[in-house]
Amino acid sequence: MKLSKLLGERTKEIPSVATVKSQALLMRAGYIKQVSNGIYSMLPPAQKVSVKIQNIIREEMNKVGGQEVLFPVVMPREMWEESGRYTSIGSEMVRFKDRNNHDMLLGMTHEEAAVHMAKNTAKSYDQLPFMIYQIQTKFRDEPRSRAGLIRVREFIMKDAYSFHTSQEDLEEYYKKVYDAYFNIYKRIGLKNVIAVAGDSGMMGGKIAHEYMLLTDIGEDSIAICDKCGYKANVEVAKGILDKVQDVDAELQEVYTGDAKTIDEICELFKVSPEKTIKAVCYAMEGDTEKSLIVFVRGDLEVNEAKVKFIIGKDIAPKDLDETSLVKGNIGPIGINDKNIVVLFDESLRDEKNMICGANKEKYHIKGVSTDRDIPNVVYYDVSKVKDGEGCVACGGKLKIYRGVEIGNIFQLGTKYTKPMNMTIHMPDGGEINPIMGCYGIGVGRNLACVAEESGDDKGLVWNMNIAPWEVEICPLRLDDENVKLKSLELYDQLQQCGVDVLYDDRDVSAGYKFADSELLGIPVRVVVSPRSLQDGNVEIAFRTGGDKKMISIENAVSFLKGYVASQKF
Amino acid sequence: MKLSKLLGERTKEIPSVATVKSQALLMRAGYIKQVSNGIYSMLPPAQKVSVKIQNIIREEMNKVGGQEVLFPVVMPREMWEESGRYTSIGSEMVRFKDRNNHDMLLGMTHEEAAVHMAKNTAKSYDQLPFMIYQIQTKFRDEPRSRAGLIRVREFIMKDAYSFHTSQEDLEEYYKKVYDAYFNIYKRIGLKNVIAVAGDSGMMGGKIAHEYMLLTDIGEDSIAICDKCGYKANVEVAKGILDKVQDVDAELQEVYTGDAKTIDEICELFKVSPEKTIKAVCYAMEGDTEKSLIVFVRGDLEVNEAKVKFIIGKDIAPKDLDETSLVKGNIGPIGINDKNIVVLFDESLRDEKNMICGANKEKYHIKGVSTDRDIPNVVYYDVSKVKDGEGCVACGGKLKIYRGVEIGNIFQLGTKYTKPMNMTIHMPDGGEINPIMGCYGIGVGRNLACVAEESGDDKGLVWNMNIAPWEVEICPLRLDDENVKLKSLELYDQLQQCGVDVLYDDRDVSAGYKFADSELLGIPVRVVVSPRSLQDGNVEIAFRTGGDKKMISIENAVSFLKGYVASQKF
Repeated sequence: MKLSKLLGERTKEIPSVATVKSQALLMRAGYIKQVSNGIYSMLPPAQKVSVKIQNIIREEMNKVGGQEVLFPVVMPREMWEESGRYTSIGSEMVRFKDRNNHDMLLGMTHEEAAVHMAKNTAKSYDQLPFMIYQIQTKFRDEPRSRAGLIRVREFIMKDAYSFHTSQEDLEEYYKKVYDAYFNIYKRIGLKNVIAVAGDSGMMGGKIAHEYMLLTDIGEDSIAICDKCGYKANVEVAKGILDKVQDVDAELQEVYTGDAKTIDEICELFKVSPEKTIKAVCYAMEGDTEKSLIVFVRGDLEVNEAKVKFIIGKDIAPKDLDETSLVKGNIGPIGINDKNIVVLFDESLRDEKNMICGANKEKYHIKGVSTDRDIPNVVYYDVSKVKDGEGCVACGGKLKIYRGVEIGNIFQLGTKYTKPMNMTIHMPDGGEINPIMGCYGIGVGRNLACVAEESGDDKGLVWNMNIAPWEVEICPLRLDDENVKLKSLELYDQLQQCGVDVLYDDRDVSAGYKFADSELLGIPVRVVVSPRSLQDGNVEIAFRTGGDKKMISIENAVSFLKGYVASQKF
Repeated sequence: MKLSKLLGERTKEIPSVATVKSQALLMRAGYIKQVSNGIYSMLPPAQKVSVKIQNIIREEMNKVGGQEVLFPVVMPREMWEESGRYTSIGSEMVRFKDRNNHDMLLGMTHEEAAVHMAKNTAKSYDQLPFMIYQIQTKFRDEPRSRAGLIRVREFIMKDAYSFHTSQEDLEEYYKKVYDAYFNIYKRIGLKNVIAVAGDSGMMGGKIAHEYMLLTDIGEDSIAICDKCGYKANVEVAKGILDKVQDVDAELQEVYTGDAKTIDEICELFKVSPEKTIKAVCYAMEGDTEKSLIVFVRGDLEVNEAKVKFIIGKDIAPKDLDETSLVKGNIGPIGINDKNIVVLFDESLRDEKNMICGANKEKYHIKGVSTDRDIPNVVYYDVSKVKDGEGCVACGGKLKIYRGVEIGNIFQLGTKYTKPMNMTIHMPDGGEINPIMGCYGIGVGRNLACVAEESGDDKGLVWNMNIAPWEVEICPLRLDDENVKLKSLELYDQLQQCGVDVLYDDRDVSAGYKFADSELLGIPVRVVVSPRSLQDGNVEIAFRTGGDKKMISIENAVSFLKGYVASQKF
């Protein structure tokens, strides 16, 4: 590839829309261009990196026996009604009517399509286990796309589905894919990756793992016990909370004026937030009348994933103006409205001398002993683990880290095969619904995560496995015939060896060329200059630093070919 | 790959839904499964062939300097309003509202996205020409999907867009892609392919070529002059029609009773269809009041593509009950309704003594001389060339063939760059809108066309370039330890040489194995049996016939490796 013809503009200016480093670098280096909110075009260098990442994923999936297939992007309503997800998934799924007025949708995931393909195609136990996967465009109408390719609405994803005759067989296979994912991250060059217990969310099933790149730009929070290694997304993490352990006091209504937030109440009563009861109000999916109030200890946050799992419905923050509730004064005592459903967090169990809202303007109640004053309560674990909580596994301390989810794997059980009526003949003559696993990884997000983790102040940094070009040839002084001839010769010879070469044929300054090369993130730069040629040499520099090398022009091709090969794995 | 785990069922029965050979074979061999009308899942063998075809296309595009990119599937309305196509394209384009109520659409083609990417990215004449392409899923809401993968609603397509500073430069580049397409067809194994002058349709522009696989199952008709080689889709083909050359006669209204069709009128008047005037009624896009009547000579068909081009709108057959017209009695004389627009075909120019409808029930008019009785007519070429018409180029005879369109290329001019305001700085200091070409080829349709053209009564036939597996190992009598060991050894060794091998590990009869192998279309089959091993040999058979070979087990790997390599190009 000649750089003069490469489509894409490289700029020094950091785009004002960029909120994270990877987004800024990918835009500055001419890798991506935004088309709409959360929708990007991939320019040639990004597409080259993307294809290389896809091929690594493909290789790792083939190594664990995966068979590549392709499911449709557009699917009919009927298929998703069989699983029940046509209605259970909200507005992140795009639905439309085709020209014949049939309800269609854009696939965000393909469990239904996988079962449709496998049903009546694999019928006997000896055809199992098998795994099918695809690499394909998905559209998910994210409410908040952000951070360039980190969270988008349209993306390419590898999604895989395995089918088993027993839970044991699934678990054995699940472990293989678990490891394959670490191979993928290693090969594309991500370093700070951990797998944590995750939320199975809309996929169903119980056991799930999320792969997290630990980084401050992450939206996910992960609780990690530095002592025993327990790791979980805070959405599912369990911790041991220190009880406040106060003594019973007298229940008393107190005038609190305009004090409404936990902070204001703590200030007024001179107590810490642990002594208060927080109320958070939600609307529940498919229910326009009722509101859900979750009560948690004042120092904690509601874990919405856990709430959704318990009530079996999606929830969303609710505007209190639509209810009979008094904003800032909601409390568990005397709340009595058939349109209010309440949920109490474990953190409130048997706590004494607490403060809560009085369900009337300008009043709170103090001296609340939960077990004494709020009878017949069932407590649920619906709060987020917080930094410093005890580890359930070893009693150590949990610490909270930020992470970006870069992959996830699920044990699905028969959530799809049962309602879709896929059966397998067993050796004993009986029939079972096969047990499924599913395994997802987004290509663009991983690309962006490499840019985020490895990029430096000069630009992007890719390893040899996924770099858009492996070597760049930078001739200085193209008006020098010898420089031009030797450079072109090198360019041709390297290409013939199968090396992916970018040739900077532009008549611009050395500084300009080097800056572009570093911004693009090419691992190796070969500088051909009149000076180096005087000694019969070219200069070789490495994107990740280290000593520059002078090497004789005769040996350059074999050195570069060998070096490139040695860096791939 | 072990055949026992390959997902897909192979059957002898021809599926009742299959209308063409390729559809039947791809279904019978477990390549495809229908998900919805015109929407298919690709099982592992189909996906393997598809990926190999994609890679051939990629290589050929890279050879002509193409840069691979990726545009989004989902695009915002605004981008398509710039080009005017948001409204000009009908219901084959899927439109929907996203969660924020923005109008979005599914891309069927990406001219707008290509200009969006290139605009402000390529600014100077010395960055041109360049070509960008993608290989990506498209959805086109076809009114009539048919014939398996031949005409579907969802498909993978390679679409390419080139940008030039002059028409000459476009034409030079266009010729390169024109040739590259023939390379693609040759490499994937299509034989009976021609390029014909085509209709630029909704793409705009004037010069266009369609690549046609000549086959009786084709929906397109192509006029070919066997003398001079003139070739064109009948949608744009021009021919020289023999005039009827009768003499003037007296104009006379005649009672014709229930005779309405051209055949019935010919029977009644004892004339040939050339002596009649046919009327065809259409609704025009965006116009609910007016109807369009096209008059052509009775032996000819209306060429709707030409009509659309002339009136600049889409048309669709119209139900006459919604108009004031008398069905079966429409004629050009005395038709006088402000809601009727008429168009006359060239075939009617200066014809004499014709018969047409009288615009009243049960009557026709005979003795019509068009130039005498229908004053102030402008004639347009709006009929389809018919078999036997004269060739405009050499005067020879045109013959009509059937074909499936397997690719198309267009010279677009500034149809997109001008309204989208993409400009390029020229050396003289001025600015121009660059001139574009675009180039499309569908992956699935080409796959199906190879199946259609090469498949035989035993099953699919693929060449070595695109076969899902290059070699199949068929051990007979797996209970024989020696057979099993030698087979597995061969399987491992061939894989290590990079040969794509299918291993039939099933304990079934030789006949069953051979039938599956032939149905799947594997080019080379290696039979390992106790009998052949007695002489230290294996038997090698070829899917396309020819002599079977016995070869020593020691030489098998090197022979197969060499043979496979020799068959690829």
